[in-house]
Amino acid sequence: MSERTQRTQVAIIGGGPAGSLLSHLLRRHGVESVVLERRSRDYVLSRIRAGVLEHGSVQTLTEAGLGERLHREGFEHEGVHLAFGGRRLRIDFTALTGRSVTVYGQTEVQHDLYGALDTHDGAIVFDAEDVALHDVSSDRPSVTYRKDGVAHRLEADWIAGCDGFHGPSRSAIPADVLTTYERVYPFGWLGVLSRTPPVSDELIYANSERGFALCSMRNENLSRYYVQAPLEDSPDDWSDDRFWSELVARLPEEAGEQLVTGPSIEKSIAPLRSFVAEPMRHGRLLLAGDAAHIVPPTGAKGLNLAMSDVVYLCRALVDHYDAGSTTGLDEYSATTLRRVWKAVRFSWWMTTVLHRFPDTDAFDFQIQQAELGLLEELEAARASLAENYVGLPI
Amino acid sequence: MSERTQRTQVAIIGGGPAGSLLSHLLRRHGVESVVLERRSRDYVLSRIRAGVLEHGSVQTLTEAGLGERLHREGFEHEGVHLAFGGRRLRIDFTALTGRSVTVYGQTEVQHDLYGALDTHDGAIVFDAEDVALHDVSSDRPSVTYRKDGVAHRLEADWIAGCDGFHGPSRSAIPADVLTTYERVYPFGWLGVLSRTPPVSDELIYANSERGFALCSMRNENLSRYYVQAPLEDSPDDWSDDRFWSELVARLPEEAGEQLVTGPSIEKSIAPLRSFVAEPMRHGRLLLAGDAAHIVPPTGAKGLNLAMSDVVYLCRALVDHYDAGSTTGLDEYSATTLRRVWKAVRFSWWMTTVLHRFPDTDAFDFQIQQAELGLLEELEAARASLAENYVGLPI
Repeated sequence: MSERTQRTQVAIIGGGPAGSLLSHLLRRHGVESVVLERRSRDYVLSRIRAGVLEHGSVQTLTEAGLGERLHREGFEHEGVHLAFGGRRLRIDFTALTGRSVTVYGQTEVQHDLYGALDTHDGAIVFDAEDVALHDVSSDRPSVTYRKDGVAHRLEADWIAGCDGFHGPSRSAIPADVLTTYERVYPFGWLGVLSRTPPVSDELIYANSERGFALCSMRNENLSRYYVQAPLEDSPDDWSDDRFWSELVARLPEEAGEQLVTGPSIEKSIAPLRSFVAEPMRHGRLLLAGDAAHIVPPTGAKGLNLAMSDVVYLCRALVDHYDAGSTTGLDEYSATTLRRVWKAVRFSWWMTTVLHRFPDTDAFDFQIQQAELGLLEELEAARASLAENYVGLPI
Repeated sequence: MSERTQRTQVAIIGGGPAGSLLSHLLRRHGVESVVLERRSRDYVLSRIRAGVLEHGSVQTLTEAGLGERLHREGFEHEGVHLAFGGRRLRIDFTALTGRSVTVYGQTEVQHDLYGALDTHDGAIVFDAEDVALHDVSSDRPSVTYRKDGVAHRLEADWIAGCDGFHGPSRSAIPADVLTTYERVYPFGWLGVLSRTPPVSDELIYANSERGFALCSMRNENLSRYYVQAPLEDSPDDWSDDRFWSELVARLPEEAGEQLVTGPSIEKSIAPLRSFVAEPMRHGRLLLAGDAAHIVPPTGAKGLNLAMSDVVYLCRALVDHYDAGSTTGLDEYSATTLRRVWKAVRFSWWMTTVLHRFPDTDAFDFQIQQAELGLLEELEAARASLAENYVGLPI
């Protein structure tokens, strides 16, 4: 079969937020890349994902010239609420850290990134099928794929694996080189989207004897709510009525009373998982985002972690091309993983302290109340949570 | 059998630090009490116990006129060291909280307390056998005991149960009223006392893949070291050589190199347990210290928690006798338990983050490293630990 060959500096596998942002940042630094995305543009843009952007993520997008709509349409949240024991505690990010987070959907971030990539022909290839990595341990790695029935080969100096948990990149690292760490949580999140005003301007994370609940929002008239549910459940097991009454039962009374309910326009159950693969570099292959690690949604770290990985990766590549230094690339995995593990820890902690596990006994529940109660008492404890939530330095 | 009857305001069961301190504090406020201790004075004073006094405990003893020898002979520690990943991190209490802790053995505290009680004849009855509580739900509670073969009855307004985990007081609360919370840890602490200079002026708590270790001290030439060991082990399984080499293997290299070893003069294995009984008051019976709760030794909270319980209890009783108010007594259990649970949480957290559990997998170990690593990065995280260690406000 004949094959069309193309050459670039960085072949980026995956056109989600990580891959698109990397391509955009690299071009701004004069490094060329081609993004290969398995799905269509419309498919990627139709994926509904949450979006709480850390301070550093907002800064990254802003400095990359992608801040205009984000600042206009995003919702700056200066705090978050923790509900437990029938009361709620506000963690005041601004007072504790001088920073804040911004609610701006991943779909919107993706839209802005595609808008930027569009101005450069050939920067991204959609519907790239059968993507395969070759010779990542050599000095001449390449990626093959099919597009509209035609075989292509993309030769590159470096391959960036930004293709998510199920993509081919991580598998290109030999099993005897790769170490993986995993925690699968014994419950899921049942999420409901409804065209109702959110119960709170800021997110409410709730610990209750009945299990976890989260009140989140997309905009002034679009709410996103979650309750912890058994993984065996199907969304069909949960009528709207059942969902709303369970949500109310898990919130402090004052919050439940303010809740505006309405028909669900989307309802789904998502599993929760922590996963880390080490190292994040093998030969000429560099992983970023979900390709290397997964966090549970508690604490909203997934998208932000992908973006900070990309910032580190871009720095290392630019340093290589501009200054001829390989230090950044050599240290990419260790540097990035240090930050990754702290976000993995934070997501694990938020999940552990807020959910009811099958083996949560009375002692564990009291420990949860004491951990949350400590936040009421100690400013240092609140500050530590706030620093983690708004994002550790990149 | 004839019975000698005596009357007092507060009958205190247990003449350890909690009971002795309560009696001493009450007398300073004009409230009379009698302490019943099952053991002999010499026996109580021969019990070897650690002693890291929180800032608030030192303050309590000082204000009670018991600070002279404590301040002269105690060792003020302005920080503590956490060792992990081959390095160590100092938590600077003074810089982070403006407070410190004092190393002063429980035996010394006990000695000072007995010295104070001695000046008042009849304040404490040693060798009080078969202590039994009666009518604690009524307005006329009493305690019976035998001493030198003679039966005694002590009538009181209130009974303070300061008789430790195995004493009779907690059992006097009906089972349907009492809720207990318990966590038994699947390992013990093998402790060695040796006449050697301590490896460090301040304590070193070590997390290692081989398990927990602690370098502690009694004075300039008396060291107390611990390693986590299986509960099934006997001290006989651990020769001095085996102990020292295991300790060194769990410490950062620089610390291991400075360790001065020598013959052990005491060697024992202690189990670790978290336990809380609620409520801490039933009728005219009020519990304090180990009678109501046990913590693992990690973080050195046990003695301090007994002392803060006693401070709350003394306040409530004095308020009752001086002002005729029952508010303090009515709120004693809830008020005290709020602080108790925070210390229980801290001891649980220190134990969890530093030990190797039988089910600690690679993910858990990385989470421990990330929790400890966060302390290196975030001053707020260090401050939160320091505030808990020097002691939350009483």
